[in-house]
Amino acid sequence: MPRAVAGPEIERLIQLLARLPGLGPRSARRAALHLIRKKDALLGPLADAFAKANESVRICSTCGNVDTSDPCTICSDQTRDASLLVVVEDVADLWALERAGAVNARYHVLGGTLSPLDGRGPEDLNLEGLVERASNPAVHEVILALNATVDGQTTAHYVTDVLASAGVKVTRLAHGVPVGGELDYLDEGTLSAAIRQRTPF
Amino acid sequence: MPRAVAGPEIERLIQLLARLPGLGPRSARRAALHLIRKKDALLGPLADAFAKANESVRICSTCGNVDTSDPCTICSDQTRDASLLVVVEDVADLWALERAGAVNARYHVLGGTLSPLDGRGPEDLNLEGLVERASNPAVHEVILALNATVDGQTTAHYVTDVLASAGVKVTRLAHGVPVGGELDYLDEGTLSAAIRQRTPF
Repeated sequence: MPRAVAGPEIERLIQLLARLPGLGPRSARRAALHLIRKKDALLGPLADAFAKANESVRICSTCGNVDTSDPCTICSDQTRDASLLVVVEDVADLWALERAGAVNARYHVLGGTLSPLDGRGPEDLNLEGLVERASNPAVHEVILALNATVDGQTTAHYVTDVLASAGVKVTRLAHGVPVGGELDYLDEGTLSAAIRQRTPF
Repeated sequence: MPRAVAGPEIERLIQLLARLPGLGPRSARRAALHLIRKKDALLGPLADAFAKANESVRICSTCGNVDTSDPCTICSDQTRDASLLVVVEDVADLWALERAGAVNARYHVLGGTLSPLDGRGPEDLNLEGLVERASNPAVHEVILALNATVDGQTTAHYVTDVLASAGVKVTRLAHGVPVGGELDYLDEGTLSAAIRQRTPF
């Protein structure tokens, strides 16, 4: 056990920083030192930003998005197409679609995937609200924007079954060659899907 | 410019996190989401730790170390050998030596290296206090624990010259094979130094 070389406040800061994804013990120490060196430009503002985020962050009770208001910015945005509902696994996926500006719709965050091996069943997903929202006559289509992984696709099939009662059109993302992708590096599944779902040029 | 998808508090948290070394825009978003998901276990405590660190961090006026007290924990530790003074470039190097438990001495943090190309001269280093401390009759030896880089070694030569007036013994770290190192992967300079400075077995 190495001796403590800095005050308990600094040690605790390093310990907590090390628990962020992407930072380990060494990079947490580096980050802490960087913060301390830039006390006024970075440590102070971050302390402030953390406190503000901590007191203002809410989970949207409609869609499960993370925001500082409930309903969230997206759910209360009247310029969005209310007939489209995009189902995502996670808030990070919602952010990715928004960054891409891929669709101007409302979202529904499941909060995970089904994974029998990891003991995650339907009761762990935010499904109840989904059926209710999809049953709204204003909603014409539910797009399943789930990861193309085994868990993601299992979940997509399950959600499709659940939504059968809502009588709404259910679609999923296209499979194909990623933009900028080289055929030589793609797997057989992707290539087959890209051929099957080829589009007129 | 993508639309804002979360409240300004969350956007600001992400922007500031992205300025930490080791985190980019994508990992900052991931870290922010992780923090928000673990609100009580991580976001709250980190907000608290940042605020505490921000108000309590001091630079030790004796050695240049970063701590929550001035003089720092190490400078005021009476069990340390007061006859040894270890000169390091940076607080990170001090922490590394302390983690290794390499030496039970006091330190002096220069705060950088000389680098004429980058416009860093002697006036940018914490040198004044060093001569004064080294001139103290209680100090018998100054160990230059500087990086084995060109800038580090240039600085070591300069510091040696500066310390000539203090009439104190000046030593530097040994060059040699790192513990666990394989000869085949080492550079010629290290191997030559390891041969020259060989020790009885």
